[in-house]
Amino acid sequence: MTASPATAVDTPVEVRDTMRAAVLSKPGEIRIEQRPTPTPGPDEVLVEVAAVGVCGSDVHYYEHGRIGDFVVESPLVLGHEVSGRIVSVGAQVPRERIGQRVALEPGRSCRRCDQCVAGRYNLCRFMQFYGTPPVDGALADYVLAPSDLAFEIPASMTQETAALLEPLSVGIWACEKAGVTAGSSVLIAGAGPIGLVNVQVARALGATRIVVTDINRERLEVAAGLGATRTVLAGQQPGGPEFDCFIDCSGAAPAIDAGVRAVRPAGTVVLVGMGADVLTVPFGVVQQKELKLTGTFRYAHTWPTAIAMAEAGYVDLDALITSRFSLADTEKALQATSQPGQIKAVIVP
Amino acid sequence: MTASPATAVDTPVEVRDTMRAAVLSKPGEIRIEQRPTPTPGPDEVLVEVAAVGVCGSDVHYYEHGRIGDFVVESPLVLGHEVSGRIVSVGAQVPRERIGQRVALEPGRSCRRCDQCVAGRYNLCRFMQFYGTPPVDGALADYVLAPSDLAFEIPASMTQETAALLEPLSVGIWACEKAGVTAGSSVLIAGAGPIGLVNVQVARALGATRIVVTDINRERLEVAAGLGATRTVLAGQQPGGPEFDCFIDCSGAAPAIDAGVRAVRPAGTVVLVGMGADVLTVPFGVVQQKELKLTGTFRYAHTWPTAIAMAEAGYVDLDALITSRFSLADTEKALQATSQPGQIKAVIVP
Amino acid sequence: MTASPATAVDTPVEVRDTMRAAVLSKPGEIRIEQRPTPTPGPDEVLVEVAAVGVCGSDVHYYEHGRIGDFVVESPLVLGHEVSGRIVSVGAQVPRERIGQRVALEPGRSCRRCDQCVAGRYNLCRFMQFYGTPPVDGALADYVLAPSDLAFEIPASMTQETAALLEPLSVGIWACEKAGVTAGSSVLIAGAGPIGLVNVQVARALGATRIVVTDINRERLEVAAGLGATRTVLAGQQPGGPEFDCFIDCSGAAPAIDAGVRAVRPAGTVVLVGMGADVLTVPFGVVQQKELKLTGTFRYAHTWPTAIAMAEAGYVDLDALITSRFSLADTEKALQATSQPGQIKAVIVP
Amino acid sequence: MTASPATAVDTPVEVRDTMRAAVLSKPGEIRIEQRPTPTPGPDEVLVEVAAVGVCGSDVHYYEHGRIGDFVVESPLVLGHEVSGRIVSVGAQVPRERIGQRVALEPGRSCRRCDQCVAGRYNLCRFMQFYGTPPVDGALADYVLAPSDLAFEIPASMTQETAALLEPLSVGIWACEKAGVTAGSSVLIAGAGPIGLVNVQVARALGATRIVVTDINRERLEVAAGLGATRTVLAGQQPGGPEFDCFIDCSGAAPAIDAGVRAVRPAGTVVLVGMGADVLTVPFGVVQQKELKLTGTFRYAHTWPTAIAMAEAGYVDLDALITSRFSLADTEKALQATSQPGQIKAVIVP
Repeated sequence: MTASPATAVDTPVEVRDTMRAAVLSKPGEIRIEQRPTPTPGPDEVLVEVAAVGVCGSDVHYYEHGRIGDFVVESPLVLGHEVSGRIVSVGAQVPRERIGQRVALEPGRSCRRCDQCVAGRYNLCRFMQFYGTPPVDGALADYVLAPSDLAFEIPASMTQETAALLEPLSVGIWACEKAGVTAGSSVLIAGAGPIGLVNVQVARALGATRIVVTDINRERLEVAAGLGATRTVLAGQQPGGPEFDCFIDCSGAAPAIDAGVRAVRPAGTVVLVGMGADVLTVPFGVVQQKELKLTGTFRYAHTWPTAIAMAEAGYVDLDALITSRFSLADTEKALQATSQPGQIKAVIVP
Repeated sequence: MTASPATAVDTPVEVRDTMRAAVLSKPGEIRIEQRPTPTPGPDEVLVEVAAVGVCGSDVHYYEHGRIGDFVVESPLVLGHEVSGRIVSVGAQVPRERIGQRVALEPGRSCRRCDQCVAGRYNLCRFMQFYGTPPVDGALADYVLAPSDLAFEIPASMTQETAALLEPLSVGIWACEKAGVTAGSSVLIAGAGPIGLVNVQVARALGATRIVVTDINRERLEVAAGLGATRTVLAGQQPGGPEFDCFIDCSGAAPAIDAGVRAVRPAGTVVLVGMGADVLTVPFGVVQQKELKLTGTFRYAHTWPTAIAMAEAGYVDLDALITSRFSLADTEKALQATSQPGQIKAVIVP
Repeated sequence: MTASPATAVDTPVEVRDTMRAAVLSKPGEIRIEQRPTPTPGPDEVLVEVAAVGVCGSDVHYYEHGRIGDFVVESPLVLGHEVSGRIVSVGAQVPRERIGQRVALEPGRSCRRCDQCVAGRYNLCRFMQFYGTPPVDGALADYVLAPSDLAFEIPASMTQETAALLEPLSVGIWACEKAGVTAGSSVLIAGAGPIGLVNVQVARALGATRIVVTDINRERLEVAAGLGATRTVLAGQQPGGPEFDCFIDCSGAAPAIDAGVRAVRPAGTVVLVGMGADVLTVPFGVVQQKELKLTGTFRYAHTWPTAIAMAEAGYVDLDALITSRFSLADTEKALQATSQPGQIKAVIVP
Repeated sequence: MTASPATAVDTPVEVRDTMRAAVLSKPGEIRIEQRPTPTPGPDEVLVEVAAVGVCGSDVHYYEHGRIGDFVVESPLVLGHEVSGRIVSVGAQVPRERIGQRVALEPGRSCRRCDQCVAGRYNLCRFMQFYGTPPVDGALADYVLAPSDLAFEIPASMTQETAALLEPLSVGIWACEKAGVTAGSSVLIAGAGPIGLVNVQVARALGATRIVVTDINRERLEVAAGLGATRTVLAGQQPGGPEFDCFIDCSGAAPAIDAGVRAVRPAGTVVLVGMGADVLTVPFGVVQQKELKLTGTFRYAHTWPTAIAMAEAGYVDLDALITSRFSLADTEKALQATSQPGQIKAVIVP
């Protein structure tokens, strides 16, 4: 019933010939389909999926069928926050890795273009990224990954935590761009999952003042519990001195305008939230204060750091999980995020 | 007739008790007034003004009486691109400096605020800057300066060149922020005086591709003569590969939008031109390419570099001068800049 | 009995006309002398000393009368880790500051030289530093300080903790130079007071692997209690993968040699410990790995960060204190550091 | 007589089945051997070698059979400064490239290790580098290269110039590490080929003071002709103010000691010359001035810059060539470098 080379190792691993996949057939419709289980290429591993976090971009594709220039033109498997267990390996991968519990980095870069060679593989010109059209994601029983993007996780780490290393990576990348360090004063707009990991990463990096704004009081309470030193309802003044940096995780124009104005001279603005294509910025403020403004697009080199931070207890990823679903209930999971009190749903195939 | 301590040195310098000053009495009106010659404080020098370049900001104050939040509310002496000769010194300044030919850095910072102590004195919270309300500038026979902002110039440098070390500083600062280096590919919008110094500084820093855009064909020809490898009429495509950086010296929204879109992933955008307070930016591009966007506000630590570059012949500041005026003709000088074919006017008291 | 302006405020502060000072009259001899209490200059404050930490450099001056080029040629008051209370202020300082509890930054820079203007005031060419010949330190009842080097401390912070913000600053500066950040792997040689603050700062900055070496098992135990993830007796191999950075707080040639060899390609080496003037370095390793090696000399801009970190509980400075002495017992305090089990002595006038 | 796919293009290129190679059979002995011409792998190109510069490391292997840990244990083809013409391509390479004139980057990195992925491929843990044991170099009629390491050169560039883009890359890399920029003051020890390219690159980057030291007056004259603003016999004082950076291209301990001492606070020291494995450094100076010291190991990302700089005329590589040899005379070329008046020999197969 299985042709996997895994039968050769001490703890044989069974790999089924077919697998279920949650397929976005059209906007607003997820179908559970049977598909052939893929076979790893020479440098690939086949991973039995254990947990998949639901990201706002998954929900956006589900609802609208597109994000900016990325359009879902044929059936697509979503899901890019993934953990699991290696059940089969390609010819160039040590067979000892079979059975290993892993977190997956979801972007497969070309390793050849100018951006890859420069060490900025997140900006790869030929990136293939789970659940971004036309590349299938991980909402399935199995998924393939290049061997070096499957990072072994410690025995003490749960699979759910491991799946959430992806949003943690977003926070690590943003805080690094923002230059957060010991004694930093940080303003964060948006207390959704990405805002909340930024709060925790900023805290772990030694920030001593972390102010969070959101329109949702409930989420602000969560932020306070995870390390925010002050929370402020969107539209109200954060008060106090200027901030060293402002990290936008809201994508909301008024929040960005207010945030830019709240930063000290030579401070930093990092735009994480995917908002409108075009944005109105207080240009005079950027010039007169010589602010440094940038955006983040995914992340690079973050998984080892993310694993070490979660393992050390510097961040609490489980605190973000507010609901769990089976693969069969993927559609419910995609609808859950907009419910009151929800932060992060996890699908456990 | 003079009480100057200069009488004590070998080459006595005569300092008149009164001086002429070109005063902006109201928008559109310059009056030549007699004022008492000021006396240097302990750490100051009195400089007999030899040359003053006319800057776009001088013209803007002359025409509109304000720039953004800076409003001319009482009579103001303009002029901040200044060179001259030290004719008198305060008690703490070596008397040997009397007679020295100097270029003046026009901004007097507090040396105490957080920005000054951090080495970013251009962002000083208490800056006093020549010709910026309510601080008088240098369009007069004499002007005071802190001793360390009066930089000795080489014997081979003319006073006119020395006055233009100020716009050169703007270019040095912008190219430094842009990260221009050997082999850089640079897009510059605007071929006015600031655009043209940026062309020259980029060339001096080893840039090998320098594309300049402007609406004015005549200015583009000057840019080509000063080192641009290609010139393009505004609105047309620059063509070729992406740029490492984009330096805006136009303040024009369409130029900024086009420039931001022309930069390579992880490239740099520097906004030098003072344009609108609020600006619409292609936000999605900044995020997906992780562009680094910043603005410049004046400059810091640039005079020694500017002097050395001009002395080495790496830049040709005299090429920018298209007309010369006496102090009595200050008003004509302020009106000259808008004439066809004009780039930079210099006033020689 | 007092001419202090403090008599004018609501909570009058009494300032005695004379004060005790612990004077290093010659190597190995401390005398308690009576001296006139100094009067603050216009921008100075007079601080009643509450706590002074004993630093290894104090001990070195006491024992040898010199550190490198700095020679004690006339009687000198030691002590530069200082906290206290403002009891009198100069004319330019708000009288409201009288009564304020403060930590003192011990170095008075010139604010004028190239290094100061560049923001590197720790490298000031005319630095006056407490307890460094010929400048008197703070082992006295009162000490003068520039108003902006007297940092208000929170009500919850003890004066002893406040005095130890100085060694904390050394650690902040070293870890910043080393580039310690989330997920960093850090090797620290030396578990004296400076090594121990580096352990804590590295931990607060998100380092997840912190290996400490020392010749003293007892100190290694303290290091383990303060955040080291592993401790190793000097001379033994730290094991495991290469380190992102190596921070030397030992000044010991073998430790430095081993540390340099243990760093990953493009990693960082920071030399904090003041050791020999000349050092033999594995040059080939520095080249083939393109290591970045630097040293630290005091610190700059660290007090606000240090206060915030201590207040947030990110570091435990009190854990370093192993003995307390009165001002009269200064000599005993200087002799205490070499006792077994001693880490840091504090003198409480 | 040829099986090359080149027969298919319009301008057929003949590739001989066998080729000559200059083989280092043992220290001090070069033999010209016939070898089969290699066949390009899928992503490789076969290059007919046009010019090979002789590097000091080639001479060192020829004379001593080793450099540090790299030992010549079997016959080795030297040569890593290479230009030529593509005569055959692998299956994945566009056939249009056949006939292209190219400069070759000599190091084939793994593209997979931590250093490669981080953008530091020069520090690749599995680097294969022309002429470094056990990898054969380019002193032959033909050589293979990965397609993306064969950079097309402009029609106006000679093959000899193209070969010397390799030492130019060494200079670009060193000056970048040193932070040379407009107005920099640079001290360079050693006026051999590497010192001389550093002079030219520093000049091209806008340095305004470039002082060169060497023991050889003749070489100093060449340095003066290529942009040094002052030359100094080794052992004599360079005079003048402190330098922003010191670039060692001598590997000589006294030069390094003197150079480190001549740098300003917070300045930079870059060690390019491969000297002793262990070096004595003025440690106290590094600490008290917080100098930043690093070494360079090859280069990364420099070929496009090098081509653009040479094409723009910012550097004159031909000025370095003092002798030319045929492949048959490789041994004479290796012996030529130590002759008086010689700087760089080029072998033209």
